[in-house]
Amino acid sequence: MTGQLAILGLGPGSPDLQTPQVSRALEEATDLVGYETYLARIAERPGQRRHASDNRNELLRARLALELAAEGCRVAVVSSGDPGVFAMASAVFEALEYGPSSWRTLQIEVMPGVSAMFAAAARLGAPLGHDFCAISLSDNLKPWAVVLARLVAAASAGFVIALYNAASRARPWQLAAALDVLRPILPAQTPVIFATAISRPEESVTFATLADVDPIQADMRTLVLIGSAATRLIERPHAAPFVYTPRSALEPS
Amino acid sequence: MTGQLAILGLGPGSPDLQTPQVSRALEEATDLVGYETYLARIAERPGQRRHASDNRNELLRARLALELAAEGCRVAVVSSGDPGVFAMASAVFEALEYGPSSWRTLQIEVMPGVSAMFAAAARLGAPLGHDFCAISLSDNLKPWAVVLARLVAAASAGFVIALYNAASRARPWQLAAALDVLRPILPAQTPVIFATAISRPEESVTFATLADVDPIQADMRTLVLIGSAATRLIERPHAAPFVYTPRSALEPS
Repeated sequence: MTGQLAILGLGPGSPDLQTPQVSRALEEATDLVGYETYLARIAERPGQRRHASDNRNELLRARLALELAAEGCRVAVVSSGDPGVFAMASAVFEALEYGPSSWRTLQIEVMPGVSAMFAAAARLGAPLGHDFCAISLSDNLKPWAVVLARLVAAASAGFVIALYNAASRARPWQLAAALDVLRPILPAQTPVIFATAISRPEESVTFATLADVDPIQADMRTLVLIGSAATRLIERPHAAPFVYTPRSALEPS
Repeated sequence: MTGQLAILGLGPGSPDLQTPQVSRALEEATDLVGYETYLARIAERPGQRRHASDNRNELLRARLALELAAEGCRVAVVSSGDPGVFAMASAVFEALEYGPSSWRTLQIEVMPGVSAMFAAAARLGAPLGHDFCAISLSDNLKPWAVVLARLVAAASAGFVIALYNAASRARPWQLAAALDVLRPILPAQTPVIFATAISRPEESVTFATLADVDPIQADMRTLVLIGSAATRLIERPHAAPFVYTPRSALEPS
């Protein structure tokens, strides 16, 4: 088969944070496949076909991309951020594993991007400066008990936590429940930061502590960063504080 | 003060994976500060000063960068990958917190990059397709007991693990000890992948399982990825397998 499939990440939003590799793949593709909101960020090119869908049905979208590549198209599957982080890459490989064996001869390349978590961290300072983890708060694809167990394990062991899929209209209560399970583990003054739409015009950042955070301020564009007990704020005159987690760790308490 | 400080990430090595924001900051800087190996990747520009050092003394390097910015220079502090992930950003903010209060009025910006872990994941497929964590295996800045406790917590809770600073001449035994502590927790067939110098000419990838992995193959350029019990390989004819972790998780066993 001669078709090609690029599974790529646009970065957090600004073209300034999109890699040259991804820009070229978008120019060369005959077909773009992705969530309509992400496709809308890409300049239209004559003759290039777009296959937009809503943000569910990731597996259907992945199969469509593989079918188009099997027909000989140059397909780009588009994610925001990095395609391997709670995005389309895993869905494409799941579709590949259970699809026709001929798909395994396709030329498939994953093209990394600046992830939402690292773009948010950069905006804040260096909150992920020590050991950290990323957890999807969605219970669409895993039991809520697993989410809670991972939150407890990560906070107890001293990881800084980045929460993806923290809130949406269909999942309004999960973030509050997640924060509740962390309160007995982490200090009340632990920084909790909502980073929304980083690098896009509507960007916003909200600082709180675990004691006073209001989960209602998160939406589906929000990356939530929860510090460890070591995470610190550096106050500045006339500017938001910097947030960082020191490189060194002390003995467990 | 009018000086500026950019703390930036070059990405894993290929210029194709470096963001336009970082490329511009490198052009505009009067002074580059960083580990000599990373500075060597950047084209020389007339009139631009270079302050290269070895890969220790991060705090000294951070203070030098802040001092130069305080003198009015446009300084770029250079890391590989993303500057916020076991790199220079945390050191700069530590130096800032304990330095002269006047430094807090400097214009400081962190510019994210494609991290080594996501570049390695992209080369392999989607091994970080579900909840994951990053742990530095260096015991220079934290007690070894903390490293072990985090490894056990992460593996027990089902996180895929990315290990930074997995091995060096000064730390030859830590990776073997880390794998030993994981063997009672994870299945023998858990994929363990050594991704070395991804996107650079000397790139190499080694596949193993937790049962048969040989830690000697890792060096200071190696990112080690350890799957969860859910991580899967997709075999292909005449090509390395893809590795992915499914988006969905089952009930804890």
